[in-house]
Amino acid sequence: MKSVGRHLVLELWECSNLNSPEVVERALLDIVDALDLTLLSLKVHPFSPIGVTGVAIVSESHVVIHTWPELGYAAVDVFTCGDERNPDDAVPVLKEHFTPERIQIMEMNRGLVAV
Amino acid sequence: MKSVGRHLVLELWECSNLNSPEVVERALLDIVDALDLTLLSLKVHPFSPIGVTGVAIVSESHVVIHTWPELGYAAVDVFTCGDERNPDDAVPVLKEHFTPERIQIMEMNRGLVAV
Repeated sequence: MKSVGRHLVLELWECSNLNSPEVVERALLDIVDALDLTLLSLKVHPFSPIGVTGVAIVSESHVVIHTWPELGYAAVDVFTCGDERNPDDAVPVLKEHFTPERIQIMEMNRGLVAV
Repeated sequence: MKSVGRHLVLELWECSNLNSPEVVERALLDIVDALDLTLLSLKVHPFSPIGVTGVAIVSESHVVIHTWPELGYAAVDVFTCGDERNPDDAVPVLKEHFTPERIQIMEMNRGLVAV
């Protein structure tokens, strides 16, 4: 079997820094660096009264962070295509910036075909 | 149990229009309309030689379309928060624009907590 990419779905709980657009942006940029991705566009939207969404579109697919500070929760997706990139490398970056007490991770192989 | 949002993961196979940035943009805008989402930013990146990535960031989370025309395949994510939005409504829009022969769909409840 061969897939076009790996998609990590991460649930981060009991986090800090969830209401900081600066930390969300820094986390996205550090994931781009850690995975050696090619950044095409970066957008960070703070919400009123709280919450942040950040999206990095990369040549190798996308990285998205949505935060719910009132729940201590962040929903993160790291989707990379190509064999050279390892989305697992996003985990230490997320730990560093959001210091979650718990992380749940699921991995999906996207575009899976028999060869 | 209560979740912050519903995340549909869609695998579209044997599609048409996969190399058209215009169709990807139209599909994103029509999904935003169909689900009554609030658009914050829209980006569509065509790739060389082929392939398109389109991302709609919405107040209610995100919609992403990545296409691999050489495989007839598109990876689509529709993540909506709030009870009023139904991500299922994206499916007829995707069918209309990309006419897939097969669609695989998985749904994840994100940010699930016991109440």
